[in-house]
Amino acid sequence: MRNILIIGAGKSASYLVQYFLDKSSAENLQITIGDLEISNAKTWIGNHPNAKALKLDIFDKTARQLAVQNADIVVSMLPARFHIEVAKDCLTYGKHMVTASYVSEEMQALDKDAKAKKLVFLNEIGLDPGVDHMSAMQVIDRITESGGKMILFESFTGGLMAPESDTNLWNYKFTWNPRNVVLAGQGGAAKFLQEGKFKYIPYHRLFRRTEFLEVEGYGRFEAYANRDSLKYQNVYGLESVKTLYRGTIRRVGFSRAWQIFVILGMTDDSYNITGSENMSYRDFMNSFLPYSPTDSVELKLRYKLKIDQDDIVWEKLEELNLFSNKKKVELKNATPAQILQKILLDSWTLSPEDKDMIVMYHKFGYELEGKKHQIDATMVCTGEDQTFTAMAKTVGLPVGIAALAILNNKIQTYGVQIPTKKEFYEPILNELKEFGVIFNEKEEKYFGYNSLNI
Amino acid sequence: MRNILIIGAGKSASYLVQYFLDKSSAENLQITIGDLEISNAKTWIGNHPNAKALKLDIFDKTARQLAVQNADIVVSMLPARFHIEVAKDCLTYGKHMVTASYVSEEMQALDKDAKAKKLVFLNEIGLDPGVDHMSAMQVIDRITESGGKMILFESFTGGLMAPESDTNLWNYKFTWNPRNVVLAGQGGAAKFLQEGKFKYIPYHRLFRRTEFLEVEGYGRFEAYANRDSLKYQNVYGLESVKTLYRGTIRRVGFSRAWQIFVILGMTDDSYNITGSENMSYRDFMNSFLPYSPTDSVELKLRYKLKIDQDDIVWEKLEELNLFSNKKKVELKNATPAQILQKILLDSWTLSPEDKDMIVMYHKFGYELEGKKHQIDATMVCTGEDQTFTAMAKTVGLPVGIAALAILNNKIQTYGVQIPTKKEFYEPILNELKEFGVIFNEKEEKYFGYNSLNI
Repeated sequence: MRNILIIGAGKSASYLVQYFLDKSSAENLQITIGDLEISNAKTWIGNHPNAKALKLDIFDKTARQLAVQNADIVVSMLPARFHIEVAKDCLTYGKHMVTASYVSEEMQALDKDAKAKKLVFLNEIGLDPGVDHMSAMQVIDRITESGGKMILFESFTGGLMAPESDTNLWNYKFTWNPRNVVLAGQGGAAKFLQEGKFKYIPYHRLFRRTEFLEVEGYGRFEAYANRDSLKYQNVYGLESVKTLYRGTIRRVGFSRAWQIFVILGMTDDSYNITGSENMSYRDFMNSFLPYSPTDSVELKLRYKLKIDQDDIVWEKLEELNLFSNKKKVELKNATPAQILQKILLDSWTLSPEDKDMIVMYHKFGYELEGKKHQIDATMVCTGEDQTFTAMAKTVGLPVGIAALAILNNKIQTYGVQIPTKKEFYEPILNELKEFGVIFNEKEEKYFGYNSLNI
Repeated sequence: MRNILIIGAGKSASYLVQYFLDKSSAENLQITIGDLEISNAKTWIGNHPNAKALKLDIFDKTARQLAVQNADIVVSMLPARFHIEVAKDCLTYGKHMVTASYVSEEMQALDKDAKAKKLVFLNEIGLDPGVDHMSAMQVIDRITESGGKMILFESFTGGLMAPESDTNLWNYKFTWNPRNVVLAGQGGAAKFLQEGKFKYIPYHRLFRRTEFLEVEGYGRFEAYANRDSLKYQNVYGLESVKTLYRGTIRRVGFSRAWQIFVILGMTDDSYNITGSENMSYRDFMNSFLPYSPTDSVELKLRYKLKIDQDDIVWEKLEELNLFSNKKKVELKNATPAQILQKILLDSWTLSPEDKDMIVMYHKFGYELEGKKHQIDATMVCTGEDQTFTAMAKTVGLPVGIAALAILNNKIQTYGVQIPTKKEFYEPILNELKEFGVIFNEKEEKYFGYNSLNI
C-alpha cells in the first residue's frame, strides 16, 4: 500500500478525493484526509475501505509531523500561506508534495534541498495556475519546436455558471473564494504588452478596459486584465512576444456593473466603517454618496455615475437589494469590501443543483517562414452540481493525476517545480481528456491588436 | 544677545529670516542659518551684522549638536522626517524648538521630558497646519465660551496664484512641493462627516466630489476633501459637530481636469515604467490607452474618457504638451507620478515676478439659545514675487512670531505643543494682522448641507 495524505478537505476536494478513491484498489492506495473538522474529511470518504479521516490541526506540530511521516506523498489543499510548514516536514521526512498554489519565495528556497533528497515539490497544478500552464506550454513548445517564433500570447480563464444555472442578471455566482472576487484587481496597476508597447491600467479603470471573446457554442464573454501579465514572459520562455496579456473571463456586462462598486469605493478593504453593524444596505450605499436631506439614494447615484434609468446596470443593483432599508449589514465595524461580500453572498451563492462552468481561452500568435499565424485554444468544462463543480474538477483532478504520477515515478524532475515542462504536462493533459477537460484548437488568421490585419 | 538657530534655509525661509533680521536690533537677536548649502543660507542674510550663515550637515552629529548648544531656540525648517534628531538635541541641551510640521509619534514621545525641562516644542505653526489651527480655534473658543454649541466645522485652504499672475488654463502653479501636489489625496479614502453621517470618497472619485466656495472680491473656488477630516474632532474639541470637513482649495475646473490624470493612472507612484527615459510625453500618455495601429492618442483618449472636442479640459491637456512627440520624459525608469511631475513643472513653475495667493476659508455652524447660526471666516494673502511668496509668508511668519514669543517668555506652556490654545493663537494672530494676514468674518444664515435650510 502507498499512503497519500491530503491536508485540507474543503470545497474543492470532491473530485480530488473521488479520483484517489476510484484508483485506490488498482493502484494500492491508502488515502488519509486530514482536516481540522473531521466531519469535512468524513463527508468525502463515506465507508470506503481504502480511506480514513483524520482530525488534524496543522498548528499542532507533533500531529502534523506524524501524519507526514506516515505518508508517501502529501497533497496540501490548505490556503497558500500554510503550505510552507508542511513542505518543511516533507523535506525532513523525505516525502513528495503537491499543491495547487503559486510558488512562494519560502517554497522556492527549499528547491536545492528537495533536489538533493530526490523529492518532487510540485506546485501550481490546479486550474489557474495549473491547467493554464500546461495547455499553454503544450502549444508553445509545439510551435517553437517546429521552428515558429512566438509573437503573441493571450490567456483568459473564468469560473462562471453553466447556461442552465445562469439565473441572475450578473451571470455570476461564487464558485471560488468570494473575498478574492471582491478584491480582484487591487494592489497595483495591471501591466501587459500590446504590439511591443507596455500598457498600464489602474484598478479604477480595470473593469472598463475589457476584451471580448467568442467561444463556439457558448457565445460571447468579456475579460479584464490580470495584475501582472509580464511575469509570464520568463516562465513560458516568451521573450520574443510583442503581445502578452492574461485576463479573467466574465459574461459580457459583468464588468460594467462591477465598475459601479469600484467607483463608489465599495471594494475598499483598507478601512473600517464605524457602526456598520447597524447599517442597512441602503445606508451602506449612501455612505459613498453626498449628504442630502431631500434627494434619494437612487437619484444621487444615478446623477453621480450618470446612469440612465433604463440602463440594465440599474436592475443589477436592484437585484442585489442594494437600496433596501430592511436588509441589514450586521457585520461590526467592517470594511467596505467585507460588507459588499456579505451583500453579494445573499444573491450569488450556488443552489444545490447549480452547475458551474470553467472557460479557458488561449491565443497563440507566431511567425513561421515569414508568415504570421494564430492558434486559438478553448476549453469549457461544466460542473455536475454544487459539490462536484467544474472548479473542483479542474483544480482537483490535475493535482490528483500529478500526485499519482509522482508516486508511480512517472515524474522524476526533482525540486520545487511548476508543470511547464513536457514531462509534467503531457501525461496530465492526456489523462484530463478522459475526464472531459479538453482543449479545442482552431487556426485563425493572425489578428493581434492590429485591425489592419483583418 | 539671544541666539536663534534656523536649520534648513529653503524656499519658504524668506519671510521667516526677514522677520528675525528686522527684529534683531530691538530684540538683541543673533541669527544663525544652518544649511547643507551655505550659499542658500547666505542668500537670505546678505551682510546683515546680526546674522551668520553656517554650513551644516544635520547627519553630522557633532556639528549639529554644537550648533544646537550655541542657540537659545532652534527653528527647524527641515523636511518633517528630520526634525526628531534635532528635537533630541534640543532636549539634551535644554533648548526650545519650533517647527511647522505635523507632530510625529516620535516627537510626541518627547512631551514628558520637554515638560520636565520646561521646554516648549511647538509644532504645526505654519500655514496648514498652523494658521488654520489658530484662526479656527479663536472662533470656536469664542462660540463655546458664549454658550454656543458647535454643530458644523468646515475648513479649506489652498495655495493658488494671485489674479494678475493667474496666467494658465489650470489657474495653478507650484508654490509648494510639486510631489505633494501630484500625490495629493492618495493613500486611502477621504473620510468626513455630513449632517451626522460618515461619508467616504475613494481616491479615484475625490476630484469629482468638490464643493464650491465664494470669496468676496475673488470669485468662486472649488475644494476637494482632505484625507481624514475626522482626526480634527478631538484636536479642536468638536465632539458635538454633525458636519466636519477639511478640504483643499483650487480654482473652479482644476479638479475636473486633474481627474483625467487620476483616471488614466498618471499619478501612480507605485511602479516604474521600463524605458521611460526614451518616451515622449505622447508615448507616456499612450501607455495608459489601448493599443491601436490606426487611432490617434487623441481619439483614444477622447473616446475612453468621453471628452467632447470642444471641452475646455482638452485645452488644459494641450497646454501641458501632453500630446507632444518632441518633448521627452528623460527620467530613467520613473514612476508615472514622477513623469507627470516633470511634465507639470515645464508649465507650472513660477516666473520671477509671479505673485501667489493663499486662500483660507472656515465655516462655523453652531446652536445658541435654540437657534442655528453660521460664521464664515476667510483670509486671502497675496505674495510679492517668486521669493517673497504668500506661502512663505503664511508659513514663515507664524513660526518666527512664535519663536520670538517663546524666547521672550510670553509662551510658557511646556512640552510638545500645537497652537490650539489661546496663549498661542492670540498673540500670534494679532501680530500676523500687522503683516496683512487678516481673517474677515461674516455671519451667514445657517446652511449646513441641508438645502431645506435655505
